[in-house]
Amino acid sequence: MAETLTTEQILEVAQDVLRRFGPSKATVVDVARALGVSHGSVYRHFPSKAALREAVTRQWLHRTHVPVAQAAKADLPAPDRLRHWLATLFDAKRHKVLDDPELFATFSALVRENSTVIADHVQELTGEIAGILRDGVEAGLFAPINDVNATARAVFDATNRFHDPAHSGDWDRDGIDKAFDAVCSLVLAGLTAQAGREVVQSH
Amino acid sequence: MAETLTTEQILEVAQDVLRRFGPSKATVVDVARALGVSHGSVYRHFPSKAALREAVTRQWLHRTHVPVAQAAKADLPAPDRLRHWLATLFDAKRHKVLDDPELFATFSALVRENSTVIADHVQELTGEIAGILRDGVEAGLFAPINDVNATARAVFDATNRFHDPAHSGDWDRDGIDKAFDAVCSLVLAGLTAQAGREVVQSH
Repeated sequence: MAETLTTEQILEVAQDVLRRFGPSKATVVDVARALGVSHGSVYRHFPSKAALREAVTRQWLHRTHVPVAQAAKADLPAPDRLRHWLATLFDAKRHKVLDDPELFATFSALVRENSTVIADHVQELTGEIAGILRDGVEAGLFAPINDVNATARAVFDATNRFHDPAHSGDWDRDGIDKAFDAVCSLVLAGLTAQAGREVVQSH
Repeated sequence: MAETLTTEQILEVAQDVLRRFGPSKATVVDVARALGVSHGSVYRHFPSKAALREAVTRQWLHRTHVPVAQAAKADLPAPDRLRHWLATLFDAKRHKVLDDPELFATFSALVRENSTVIADHVQELTGEIAGILRDGVEAGLFAPINDVNATARAVFDATNRFHDPAHSGDWDRDGIDKAFDAVCSLVLAGLTAQAGREVVQSH
């Protein structure tokens, strides 16, 4: 296997190893053993245990993010697209935690230990929100926004009960979908507030 | 001391004991010893260790809540009062964690172990928000609201990065006040959206 060893194979097996041993115990040697190669072969792809852990964590985040990134490009007016994007994000995170709580806990711990990974992930998400906000302002469906990035972050923060793993204990509670809808409606009303006012004024 | 032992004295000392021993180790005997009384004297006020812990926890929450409850009654128009209330809540929580992180961790753990205490605390807070929302609707400063309690909860959820202890690690970060202002503005714009529209229409 060593000859054809790819980065993808290592990441795949490393994810299993992390899951089985837990993030504090899993080592590069464990990953190499599971692959049937020497640890030198793994180190040829990843210079350190930390680099391997970071790569596995990024891959895990990236996979969950695929449907969310698609939602950001959905063919919908900006307000509907934003609600769809938020719902897709919530669903993706919720499935991840409810389908496999152990793996979720493992990776949440890995994410927390690497603040660059978190920062990049938040930037990717708020970047998608900012894109939807710009489209909405351009179409006259959202009010003009002074600082799109700050407002995108405010939308992200205002909905964090529905995507931040710190709140995952609430995600299977009765009424959580109603609570999600109420927050989305409040946020969307805030974004359209001025736009609505201008529409009325122009009559 | 036993003759004049009051509930308040017990709660005061129990708080110290919890702080010194940690919530998992502190016992009624420790509290009694610190008071210089028999544990029977403490049990006369609190039927069990659990009851004493709950009373201490409620008292701790109640104390932090005093300035917040005052903010709910501030002599300000509803939108300004809501922003003031949210800022007071954030300040109160933030001071509590930054001034004495150890005590905050102790009590956060105690609060988490008692879901009734959390539910009552959330109900008290959302009740204050609901009161401000009703005043604002009545004054024509907020749009009419179908379900005031659900909207109050949405305001509470949308601002949770700035009051939920799960996010306390963010509270001394650069830019946190700007982030707080951005979320407040978004929420207030959402609440005034329709009201604004009606004001314009009546011109």
